[in-house]
Amino acid sequence: MQAVWLENNSLSVRNDLTIPNPPPGEALLRINLAGICATDLEMVKGYYPFTGIPGHEFVGTVMNVSDQDEVSQAWVGKRVVGEINAACGTCSACKGGRPTHCERRSVLGIAGRQGVFADYVTLPVKNLHAVPDGVPDESAVFVEPLAAALEIQEQVFIRPTDQVLVIGAGRLGQLIAWTLALTGCGIQVVARRSRQQELLHKRGIQVILPDQVPTKKFDLVVEATGTPEGFYLARQAIRPRGTLVLKSTYKGDLLVNFSAIVVDEITLVGSRCGPFAPAIGLLESGRIDPRELIETSYILDEALTAFESAAQPGVLKILLKPDKN
Amino acid sequence: MQAVWLENNSLSVRNDLTIPNPPPGEALLRINLAGICATDLEMVKGYYPFTGIPGHEFVGTVMNVSDQDEVSQAWVGKRVVGEINAACGTCSACKGGRPTHCERRSVLGIAGRQGVFADYVTLPVKNLHAVPDGVPDESAVFVEPLAAALEIQEQVFIRPTDQVLVIGAGRLGQLIAWTLALTGCGIQVVARRSRQQELLHKRGIQVILPDQVPTKKFDLVVEATGTPEGFYLARQAIRPRGTLVLKSTYKGDLLVNFSAIVVDEITLVGSRCGPFAPAIGLLESGRIDPRELIETSYILDEALTAFESAAQPGVLKILLKPDKN
Repeated sequence: MQAVWLENNSLSVRNDLTIPNPPPGEALLRINLAGICATDLEMVKGYYPFTGIPGHEFVGTVMNVSDQDEVSQAWVGKRVVGEINAACGTCSACKGGRPTHCERRSVLGIAGRQGVFADYVTLPVKNLHAVPDGVPDESAVFVEPLAAALEIQEQVFIRPTDQVLVIGAGRLGQLIAWTLALTGCGIQVVARRSRQQELLHKRGIQVILPDQVPTKKFDLVVEATGTPEGFYLARQAIRPRGTLVLKSTYKGDLLVNFSAIVVDEITLVGSRCGPFAPAIGLLESGRIDPRELIETSYILDEALTAFESAAQPGVLKILLKPDKN
Repeated sequence: MQAVWLENNSLSVRNDLTIPNPPPGEALLRINLAGICATDLEMVKGYYPFTGIPGHEFVGTVMNVSDQDEVSQAWVGKRVVGEINAACGTCSACKGGRPTHCERRSVLGIAGRQGVFADYVTLPVKNLHAVPDGVPDESAVFVEPLAAALEIQEQVFIRPTDQVLVIGAGRLGQLIAWTLALTGCGIQVVARRSRQQELLHKRGIQVILPDQVPTKKFDLVVEATGTPEGFYLARQAIRPRGTLVLKSTYKGDLLVNFSAIVVDEITLVGSRCGPFAPAIGLLESGRIDPRELIETSYILDEALTAFESAAQPGVLKILLKPDKN
């Protein structure tokens, strides 16, 4: 099969790979469509030690399932998305109901598991979610980042009377702003680029420039840039006893005044992968339509160009499509 | 009147000060007993810009009240403790129900308001809490730090099934551990000194040495040392999706890996002043008896010796008593 291959911070497109055999409990999926995310770009820069096929945002079709029981076999032929953390089910994190934090987890296209920039991939059946007929592939491919946006509402109690600031209006920042706006809270988004601003204005979401952000004003601030500047702006904007959600990873360590965090009684919340089922529900109901976030799509053969394009500032979602599909 | 005076990082005992006149809304209190806290020691080192009378932990007696209405005058003669933040009542923090974060607040003996290491002090009547007859001065003087310990339970939902680690077993760390133990949670406290360990063992609280602390184990970690070592140990001990409460201020900034906080979805909570009423309730019911935390007491004349003593490692609470009382 064909796939993108990452090795020693270098990407290539290989045609010599074997279609994987799903191990017990897993399914073989044909990839319909995949999305390039900031984490993929960071992996190419070497921020994660990974050799193999990257990619974790996808929609695919179940080709076969290793387990022969009726429940497992019923997945064959279904169009699916899949949770990216494959958990052991037996460690203290799994038993505590936190499988995305499994101590022995592999992560699709990120750690210990081949990813989705390929013709085929395998994934545990328990990670799969069926995609309703009304949700096209171009929407379903956004389930993973949409779920990550919803993770904020899994972790933080957001009131309709809250004043919320989202810092960052790229691919993930838009999904965060769109989903938070559905809660009825007051929301403003730091967005510099006119395309980002238009996407927000169309949804009635207020835009603010970085130098207009008031000090100690917001009940909740979501930092989605992963930059030190974004973090310090968030810290400036949050009111005493407010909650600051960190939604992106940072290169290197940050130097932070924790005394001020104690005196102002700020709560900082790290936030990562989220729940797939409500993300699919928002797509099916039409409350979120992410297709405007698509910049363009490339076939796998053109993956290197696709990665270059995804790394340009202000570019929205770049999709990858296996050639034969 | 007599009082301790802090100016240019230097302490003195002055006898030339005038007994203050309570402004509208305030009461004049005679100090029965006051406690030296870590913040006072840091102020002497110059970590806060303050000139005047330090001290904010106290129990006193209301001598007179400026307002002549019946409700205000009913306070005269009462034994009281007092909340340390004097709030304006009109800013957005006050109107939002967060008077301890008032944007125009003065703080007793810390910022913009003379403190309690003196014969007399003034404080807004609305900050006062009557001390029940059954609570002796030697217990009541601990209401402020006990309230600060309870602030953790105001901010964080603690379950009986939670495994909790407290880092630091000094004056505040003990009160934190004792109050958390009352919730029925599993609790261990990092304590090096035998006196600290004894105080915990007597209350059935498990002691652990720093190098025995397991990695990613605890649901909740309270950092009460205010040292970088304490912070990094807390970060090591907390499990993914756990909550790390910061209960002390830190000298200078800390260098922190926020990517790991995002990936592990850690919640960090800054925690400061807490609720007085339940603290008084715990003393009255006998569920907390802090008198074992008293190292010794000095008269105001000996305040410089008292401060030196309080700064020694492992010393418990040093009290100050106006000479004439």
